[in-house]
Formats: sequence, C-alpha cells, structure tokens
Amino acid sequence: MESDIRASRYYQDGQVCNTSSPGKDLNAVKWWGWGLESKTYPLDDKPQFWPYLLKTLKLAKLSKCSRMTFEEVRLPPCRIDDRTLARVKRTVGAGISTGKHDRLTHSLGKSYLDLLNLRQGLIRNPPDAVAYPKDEQEVAKLLSFARANRISIVPFAGGSSVVGGVEPAKARGTKGAITVDLRRMKNVLHVDAVSLTATVEAGIPGPELENELNKRGFTLGHFPQSFQFSVLGGWIASRSAGQVSTKYGKIEDMVESLTLVSPNGKLDTKAVPASASGPQLKQVLIGSEGTMGVITKAKLRIHHVPAVSRYEGLMFKSFRNGINAIRETMQSGSVPAMMRLSDPDETMVSLMLSSQSATTKLGLWMLERLGYAPSRRCVMILGSEGDPTIVKAERQVAVGACKRNGAFAIGKGVGATWLNERFELPYLRDVLLDHCILVDTLETATTWDKLEALHGAMKRSIEEAIAEMGVAGLAFAHVSHAYPDGASIYYTIVAPQVAGKEVRQWLTMKKAATDCIMQNGGTLSHHHGIGKDHAPWIKQELGENGLALLRAIKRQLDPEGVMNPGKLLGSN
Amino acid sequence: MESDIRASRYYQDGQVCNTSSPGKDLNAVKWWGWGLESKTYPLDDKPQFWPYLLKTLKLAKLSKCSRMTFEEVRLPPCRIDDRTLARVKRTVGAGISTGKHDRLTHSLGKSYLDLLNLRQGLIRNPPDAVAYPKDEQEVAKLLSFARANRISIVPFAGGSSVVGGVEPAKARGTKGAITVDLRRMKNVLHVDAVSLTATVEAGIPGPELENELNKRGFTLGHFPQSFQFSVLGGWIASRSAGQVSTKYGKIEDMVESLTLVSPNGKLDTKAVPASASGPQLKQVLIGSEGTMGVITKAKLRIHHVPAVSRYEGLMFKSFRNGINAIRETMQSGSVPAMMRLSDPDETMVSLMLSSQSATTKLGLWMLERLGYAPSRRCVMILGSEGDPTIVKAERQVAVGACKRNGAFAIGKGVGATWLNERFELPYLRDVLLDHCILVDTLETATTWDKLEALHGAMKRSIEEAIAEMGVAGLAFAHVSHAYPDGASIYYTIVAPQVAGKEVRQWLTMKKAATDCIMQNGGTLSHHHGIGKDHAPWIKQELGENGLALLRAIKRQLDPEGVMNPGKLLGSN
Repeated sequence: MESDIRASRYYQDGQVCNTSSPGKDLNAVKWWGWGLESKTYPLDDKPQFWPYLLKTLKLAKLSKCSRMTFEEVRLPPCRIDDRTLARVKRTVGAGISTGKHDRLTHSLGKSYLDLLNLRQGLIRNPPDAVAYPKDEQEVAKLLSFARANRISIVPFAGGSSVVGGVEPAKARGTKGAITVDLRRMKNVLHVDAVSLTATVEAGIPGPELENELNKRGFTLGHFPQSFQFSVLGGWIASRSAGQVSTKYGKIEDMVESLTLVSPNGKLDTKAVPASASGPQLKQVLIGSEGTMGVITKAKLRIHHVPAVSRYEGLMFKSFRNGINAIRETMQSGSVPAMMRLSDPDETMVSLMLSSQSATTKLGLWMLERLGYAPSRRCVMILGSEGDPTIVKAERQVAVGACKRNGAFAIGKGVGATWLNERFELPYLRDVLLDHCILVDTLETATTWDKLEALHGAMKRSIEEAIAEMGVAGLAFAHVSHAYPDGASIYYTIVAPQVAGKEVRQWLTMKKAATDCIMQNGGTLSHHHGIGKDHAPWIKQELGENGLALLRAIKRQLDPEGVMNPGKLLGSN
Repeated sequence: MESDIRASRYYQDGQVCNTSSPGKDLNAVKWWGWGLESKTYPLDDKPQFWPYLLKTLKLAKLSKCSRMTFEEVRLPPCRIDDRTLARVKRTVGAGISTGKHDRLTHSLGKSYLDLLNLRQGLIRNPPDAVAYPKDEQEVAKLLSFARANRISIVPFAGGSSVVGGVEPAKARGTKGAITVDLRRMKNVLHVDAVSLTATVEAGIPGPELENELNKRGFTLGHFPQSFQFSVLGGWIASRSAGQVSTKYGKIEDMVESLTLVSPNGKLDTKAVPASASGPQLKQVLIGSEGTMGVITKAKLRIHHVPAVSRYEGLMFKSFRNGINAIRETMQSGSVPAMMRLSDPDETMVSLMLSSQSATTKLGLWMLERLGYAPSRRCVMILGSEGDPTIVKAERQVAVGACKRNGAFAIGKGVGATWLNERFELPYLRDVLLDHCILVDTLETATTWDKLEALHGAMKRSIEEAIAEMGVAGLAFAHVSHAYPDGASIYYTIVAPQVAGKEVRQWLTMKKAATDCIMQNGGTLSHHHGIGKDHAPWIKQELGENGLALLRAIKRQLDPEGVMNPGKLLGSN
C-alpha cells in the first residue's frame, strides 16, 4: 500500500510539520497559477491584443509584477502536534503529508485573490496536513477522527475553486485543519451501457473520466473551463456547469445518485431516474461545498458520443438581437449544445485575441458595411451535437431564430477556434498578472425578462467601482448556459492593479458587482458556487429562513462544525 | 368578504361542532368516490369487459356492494372546543367550517382504503374543522395559532391523494386537527410571456390553471390522471407527474421557485433558471407533503401551446421490444411527449375496454397472423408535441426506434381514444367497487437495466399475494414517464374483494408489491408520493441517515410537529 501511495502523482511524503522542506516532486502543475508549468497563453501571434488592452485600460506601457519562488515562500507552522498526526496516520491508514509542497498547493484555490496571495507568498491558512485517502472507509475514519478531535476538514478535489472554496479557514474551537485530497479515489467503478450511467469515485479528474467513457463510446458532456484540472467531486460540491450544459445539463442534472460521507455517517441516495419519495435529498448534498461532508462517489448519467457535432459562428447587430435568438430557440423546444453570445466588448476582445487573417479582416469590413457596427455587434457560437436527425432539426430551429433576429452566419472557422481554445483562457490570467493587471471572472443567471437590464447594470457597476479607485477597467460578458426561462451571464473584468491596494480594489469591484446582481434579480452564482467570497451575500440569496434551514441541515450532518468552516454559510 | 367566502364553491358554512347537520350544498363532486356525482364510467358499449373480467378473476357472477348515504354517515365529535374555534376565526379571519359536509369531504383522499372507508362510513379521523384561507397571510396566522395551541394542520389541495396523504392522523400532544383547504387561493398572479413563467397561487385546480394559460397561448403541460380535480399545491407537495412528463418534466422540473409558509416562518426560493448558491432548498420543499408547511404559491415554467400534436398507436410483439424502443428513443436525445407502453395484460384490458369496431377486429386478426400474439403483444401510445420541425425529427427518431424493435403502426385512432379517455379511468374504480372488486394502482420507477425484471417480479408478487387470500387477481402495467436512464412502471390491480377482510387483503397485496419494489431497485414512489401508506418503507428508501436528515429539516420548519402528522416520515 505504501508504494501505492508513493506512486500517486499527488502524494507528497513530507516531514511532519517540517514547513520549509521543498516538495520532492514539483510536478507539472503550477502552484502559483493556472495549469501546467510548461504552458502559457501565446500572444505572439495576436499583435493587436496588447495595444488594444493598453488603450482600453488607459495605460502608457506594460508593467511587470514579479512573484515569489517556491523556495521563498514561508508557511506558518503546523498547528497539529506530531502525536495527533501520528494518530491520524495510524487510524486512517491514508497517505498523509505535511510537506511544504503539499501544504502550499492545498492552501488556496484559483481565484484572483488566491493568485494574488500565492504570487506574493501570503499563505495565511495552509492546511496543517494533507490526507490522501484511498477509499470511502478511510474518508469515514478521517471524519470520525476529526469530529472527535475537533480538527477542521477541507475536502479538496481539483482545487480550481474561484470563490475561495478550498482555503482552510481558521475556525473557532478547532485545533487545525486537514485537507482531504480525493484524487487517489478515481476509479470508474461501473459503466451501465443499458441505462447509460457510470458509477465513478469522486476524485477522478475531468480528462481521465472523459477518456474512460470515450473508450467505451460514451461521454459525460461536462466541460467546465477548468476541465483539464478540475475533478468530479468538486463539480458536484459546487454545482458546476460545463460549456455545453444547455444540452447536457449542469452537474446536478447529471448526478443520478451520490454518496456523501458526513461526520455523522454516510448517505447513499437512491439511483433511480426520478422519484416522489419526499424531498429530494440529493439536491441538498449537491452544492454542499464540503460543508456537510465529503462526496465520495456518484452515479452519473452519460451519453453516447455524439454522432455529429457542429460549432459555428453567427454575428448579430446587437446584444438584444442575440438574446432574443437564444430565448426563441430555447422556447421552441430546440436544445442546442451551446449558444454562447458575446456582448460587443467581448466580441471585440475575442477579435483582438484572434490571429486575424486577411480573409477575417475582409469579412469584418464587409460586416461593418452591412450594418454590424463594431461598437454593437455580437458574436455567437452555436454548437449542435447528438443524433443526426435531432441535430438537424435543432440546428434548423436555432439558425432560424438567429436569422429572424438579423444574424449573419460567419461559418465554422469561428467554432473551430473556440473549440481549440476552450480551456486555454485561464492561462492568460497568469500572463496578465505578470503585467500587474487585475483579471477576474464572475457569473450569475436570471430570467429572460431581466437579463438585458442585469447585463447593463453589471457592466456599469463594475466599471464605475474600478474607476472610483482611479483606474480604467473593462468588463465584458457572454450569455451562455441557456434555459427556456433564462440564461447565465458571465463577466470577465480587466483593470490595471492599484499598486499596494490590490485586495481593496478587488473587494470594491466584487462588492459592486455582487450587490448589483442581488438588486437586479440575479442569482449569487450560477456555477462557481459560494465558497468564502460569496458567503457574505448568502443570507440575502436564501432569505433568513432559507439560511436557517441550510444551517439545520449542516448541524445534522456536521454537528461539531468541522467541515470546511467559513464556506457557503458565512459565519457558522 | 363574508359573501366572498360564501361564494366559494368549496366553502361550507357549518355549525361549530355540529357533527350531524348535512352540508347545505352537496355540490357536484362525489364525497364517496371519484369526480362528478353526475358521471360514471360507461360500460354499455364495451360488451366484452364484464365477461373478460369475470373469467380472469374466476368469478361466476357479479356481486353488489352497497355504500352508505351521506345522511347515514356519522362523524366522531369535534375535539376542538368552541372557544378555541372562535379564536381561530377571530385570529385568522379565514372562512372556517365544522359542517359535516366539509369535515367528511376532507377526512380522506382517494386511495382504495379511503374509498373502502368512505363507502362504509368509517370516518375515523375527520378534521375537527376546515379552514379556507384567502391568502398567504391567513395561512401564516393559522400556522402560528396551530403551533402555539398544539393543533395539527393538514394542508389540502385537491384531496386526490392515493397514498393517504390528507387524512388528519391522530398526533400525540395535539388537541385536534384543522384541515387547510387552499382552493380559495387560486389567482394567477402574473404571467411573464418573455421568460415563459406564470406565478400562481397554490390552490388553483388543474383545469382552471390550464384555461388561464391557454387563453394567453400557453400551457403548463402537466396532466396527471387526477387533472380535473387535483390542484397545483398538491402536485408540488407530492412530486406529481403528468401524462406527458417525458417532454415537460415532472412538477419539480416545472417549479422555477415557490413560497412555503411553515410554522417557523416563510421561505421564498429565488426565481432563477438555475443556481450554484449551495444546496437547492427548493427541492426540499417540493415533495414535503404538507409536513413542513403549506406551499402557497409557485412560479411555474410554462410553454407555448404546441403548434402540432400527434398521438398514435404502435403494436409490439413483446414487452421487451417496446421497452427497448423507448430506451433507444430517449437515449438518442429525442424527447417525445409520451411513450406509454402497456404490458400484454394491460393491452388486453384496453381492448376489452374499447368499443371494438369491425375494422378493429379485422386489424387484430391480421396482427395475430403477423406474429403479434395476444398473450405477448403490447400496445404503445406515442405522443409528439411542440414545434413542427422539432416534432418531426423527434417522431422520426421515435418511430425509427419502434420499427427497429418490430413495431407495427396501428394509427392515430388509438391515440385519439387515449386522449379522449385519459382522465376517465378513475370513474371505473367506483363501478368496480360497486361490484365488490378491489381495484388499486401503484407505481415506481427504476433504471433501464432493472426495468423488465422489476416489472415481472411485481406482477408475480402482487398476484401471489392476492392468491394467498383465496381469490384470483390480475396485475397489469404500463411503462411511462421515460427518461434517458429509466422509466416508471405503473400497475393496476383488480381482484374480487375478500368479504370482511377487505383491508387485510389490500395490506397483504400492498406489502408484497412494495417489498418487491424495494428489493428490485425501484423507488418507493415515482409520482404518487409517500403519505401514510408508503411511510413504513421510507427509512428503507432514504436510509437511516437520509431519514435523520429529513427529520432534521422537518424539526427546523415545524418544531412542534403540527404539520400533517403521520405522513411521509412515518412515526414522527
């Protein structure tokens, strides 16, 4: 078993409470940013990007912001004594590490604040140890031990939370925190080719799961932007949505049943397509963000690998036209894989991030002549996937709705580019941070009647909040994840960092954006979750009685409050 | 306001605790059976039915079972004293009645046991009073009063529960029970033609809601067999499914948001298409069966009235062929309105219940020659609804899957007959009961891999349990409410009553059927709910920790346990 642990690419056999020893295996994943150490976002072939960004952010030139090296980072000392850790090890039998690399790589997620802190080496709340259980039994033992010994437990899947979901917050009355990394639990336990379900352990990363399914002719159809590094358990815990959720649903729609190990025992929900056996408890465990227990496995609804798949571009004369096209499509009963509509600013940014050929330039010139003005035009990627007969009809209805709303078909090239780069943009964040540029994303969803107003209000709120601190910011968005009754809005924000006040700048922007969402009928989050960052608004989101109900649920499953303190419920 | 109350067709101004006075308005609805007093199930034009049934049930002749008249029924005395009732009236301001008709018509639902008891005048647990609140505020005041005074509250919508959901059970420590009839709260508060949602009070009956929507060009698409007499709040409280749920979803899919008034305060869930703001509390309130509070209104996802609608029949050589056709259709991404597959026995019963023309007889003869043997053949109704382009493709895929599995198209006549009679069968129950024949229905759902085995096991369990008591029963079923990962199975059971042991007979059958469901991977209920009848199995369904969680939720919302005692959670 020991060798099995060592073989794990995530396991790091550290010294107990030795906070300065470097990890032995600085594997390919960045501790300070997104994705692989070996990879960046290429800008050399996009000559228009930097000039456009400098002009938009009213910057004379690019600055340079450095970051600490691994060796320079100092972690606070471990708070759990060696004897307790030795007991954990004996009791649990799981791989457990207190090595610096393990503690550091589990100390924060991938939010803007997280990256700020990582780059500056401000690691306030690393876990005292990282456990790598190999199965459900070890998770259960860990939780029992933690409950009995008042140690916080932070479940950790891919660690790609952008809302502060995995930082081991200080919790009153606990001795310290152990992060439970699930990535050794990654078996595909069963594939049911008749019912189209797969029973999978929660620690499996997206690509491994998809590979396992693809081999058998299936797909889950869940591709969040974090796909390459995020993990099933995290998707479920945070109610993740993939880029083609319009067709395949959010993760909560894909979970037929799941197992949660809580400090108060294990829950298995029943694996049936639907039920009237009282409240659907599954929907309480999905989205629990590690605050109720650890999701250890799930039975997922899977699909045949689509026989046809087509991604294409359409240009609209206005954002409103594009919104109407999505709405009319969804309300006709057509369910495309994706209708992703960029607003005029995002359309412009996308252009600036493309390596424009002569043909593209000609096309743009022509579009402008046809009334698709650069200041108002909006690009949409329409994705169609599935059975050929169904796809043909769904696409016909979708394209019909687009055409009725004045769309101009700009071909499959745009779709191919999007598909190629669908997981790449997070790399650009690191590049921008290297140049002292704040970059963050946030999202919400609302009903169609409020969508356009909310989109406008958010842009104003965000850009004004940034301006208040004396710099010029840009907020651009797309509408995606469409439903018959509404859709999500996903904003990206860029602005020059206000040196020395980076955190305050972000908090100001975040508060403005979130207040605006709450005032305009949006949900606090459509697919990023609540974590630490959105928790101050959770009472407003759920109402006082809703939050009280959530707390009652938490008390039942986690009576001592050891699970992921400070997340989701605000102050516990 | 007083005249407003009197105008209500449900309101009955009774005398306080006068248990013998007849209701003044014996309106058109039966107190002892299904539907309208003026209506029955016509059998005169179906000459084959009785002979077939007598033969199948091994009966020499039809018996006759009488039922009590309204005047003969005696209700137990009211347990709530006049002073308390007067206080309710003052506090609440709602119409409140203790008249016999009101108490009687709210004492039981429409299950087989309920009908047995009603017909024999065995009314053990009538409510002590029936309140007719006119709005959410009155409901809230009623619940506060009940909580403070330890009076049970039984929410009542259409009263069509077939699982014992509305009988005011005796609860320890309470003084009595007030049933809260919601049918004065039936306003369509808002229709949002942009987002396709309707905000509706929970007391609206199906036909009124559908009429209001149809007038504006919309439909909810929710048509349970009880449609003509069931009510929105009941649908939501019991996780109802309509006949075309395959396309439009179950009621839990239709509810964008809802309001629940609990004894511990009001909860409004957020009206957004989807959210990642932690657990989905809405799904805890949906299916709460009146045990957590009263659902007072909901914002529902509605649809354009379908531009095309086509219902047609197909005949399969075997049940397995039909199941495969549904499964393959659903797994291709086609979403027909309905694929309702009768097993061989139900196919035969349907034939016996049809007024067979010469053409039909010829068709059947021909089918038999083609290998569709009467002992194995299965009829399917395929329904297609919606946008013409989508419907055409969805139907093409569905018909293709049927043909691949050996189906023979038998035309639209069968579909038209089904549509005409879709709400009529409950009337036949009363006719059968008049002839001392047990008739009940029960349902479950499971995944495709288990469906055929579960169907077979249920038939055997039910028929054997009936045989044990010395009579010959028949259990026949259909598969409906299809999903990509499975479907529901809906059984109808008929058997000669065992005179004097009617209740024991039913309990024996019910236990056998439910144990069989639980042992074979079915859910305790797909759309009837739990109520009193399924509560003994709820622990097995949810697991010990699941039930503990449900109880914790109940305690939070209803700390004194006044809401609908004895339902859903078993012994409180």
